Amino acid sequence: MLTLIIAESALETIPESLWNHPAIRKLSKTRRRHPNSILLDRSYHHVAMNKLENNEKRGRPDIVHFALLEALGSPLNKEKLLTTYVHTVQDVTIQVNREARLPRNYSRFVSLMEQLFQVGRVPPNSKEKPLLVLKHQTLQQLIKEAKTSHLLALTRSGRPKTLEETISNLAGFNKAGVLVGGFPKGHFTQAVTELADEVVCIDSEMLETWTVVSRVIYEFERALSLPKKRLSETRSSS
Amino acid sequence: MLTLIIAESALETIPESLWNHPAIRKLSKTRRRHPNSILLDRSYHHVAMNKLENNEKRGRPDIVHFALLEALGSPLNKEKLLTTYVHTVQDVTIQVNREARLPRNYSRFVSLMEQLFQVGRVPPNSKEKPLLVLKHQTLQQLIKEAKTSHLLALTRSGRPKTLEETISNLAGFNKAGVLVGGFPKGHFTQAVTELADEVVCIDSEMLETWTVVSRVIYEFERALSLPKKRLSETRSSS
Repeated sequence: MLTLIIAESALETIPESLWNHPAIRKLSKTRRRHPNSILLDRSYHHVAMNKLENNEKRGRPDIVHFALLEALGSPLNKEKLLTTYVHTVQDVTIQVNREARLPRNYSRFVSLMEQLFQVGRVPPNSKEKPLLVLKHQTLQQLIKEAKTSHLLALTRSGRPKTLEETISNLAGFNKAGVLVGGFPKGHFTQAVTELADEVVCIDSEMLETWTVVSRVIYEFERALSLPKKRLSETRSSS
Repeated sequence: MLTLIIAESALETIPESLWNHPAIRKLSKTRRRHPNSILLDRSYHHVAMNKLENNEKRGRPDIVHFALLEALGSPLNKEKLLTTYVHTVQDVTIQVNREARLPRNYSRFVSLMEQLFQVGRVPPNSKEKPLLVLKHQTLQQLIKEAKTSHLLALTRSGRPKTLEETISNLAGFNKAGVLVGGFPKGHFTQAVTELADEVVCIDSEMLETWTVVSRVIYEFERALSLPKKRLSETRSSS
């Protein structure tokens, strides 16, 4: 069982300090929505973001989008052995139902996230288990809730170790957890790495979030011999 | 050295048979562009695509987008050990410069592809090596040009074998090639699998293109002990 947390993710609605920026006011008028219900996106709000604090780590919803598609489409997830959370740079967390089929199209993903930030869950009124639930909580609170027994953080500032070795150790724990950064540049804040039991660097260069997510999950599957098990089912059922 | 070909990809401009569909005519008017310079996209042209031949395999530019991001961002590519091509369902091929930094934003990727389909290369007038070059050629012609010495095709209709075993064999060849399907549903046409030296199934369920691309590249890196080599460089340079 693996708990994946995409942490300090660059996913948020346009922050109050930008609401009066001319480009944002124009956008708000065109879209007929208040900026607090529009996702911050560097592709479109680059100029407005210039003066935003910590801006190199913010405004990249595409990172969460790709990373979630990698996670939810994995055999590990299909076997119900993966639990996925998103934690954002503004201390919002998103619990992702493993059966959620997220939109492949980016604009539709953005609309879904905007609805989630407004209503707190999607779909808003379903009687069944929601696909996504939003909470205002810190990473520390989320980790406590997820009850991981051993938490690994992957970051370039960690101890150099191959992913193979790292994950094969991790898979020995009953409720293993892993933190992968959901931002485009920079490092985890110290408060984040202090929450981890182990802090590891898996490559000499920065790797993209979706690449790390995909590799972590695949190594975890390998550690459980899942590829072989699933193929032998194919043989016996065909 | 690995040659990756994303084959029969769901990437094309709106085909002539749809140009007179009311939804497409309206779109063409709004965007002030002829449909032959707009990418076919199921997210927007779902209804118009209903009567299109073979439509379940077409109109998903996001698949090529994600798959290319996985390929170009990989350590294997950074080490200049990966060559990436896209082949489309309409027998167009795209040669991807390994140093291309593709837009992360989907709309910008679509604009880039539309320009590529119109002009045949991007950037259009650069004196330097272009980032993307388009050719009208079959997969067979592309493979001949790429001069692979052993070609693997991954498809659910292949022989069940773990990816680990498959790629560790493949890495023994001097110019290894792999075909991964760039379409959302269905199988390679027979003509495609007949071009391959080996046809393998790596999982009991359909996996998404970007997931397969990411895993193939990672296994190839492992077969070359690249993760260890790159980490030891970190140690010696730090």
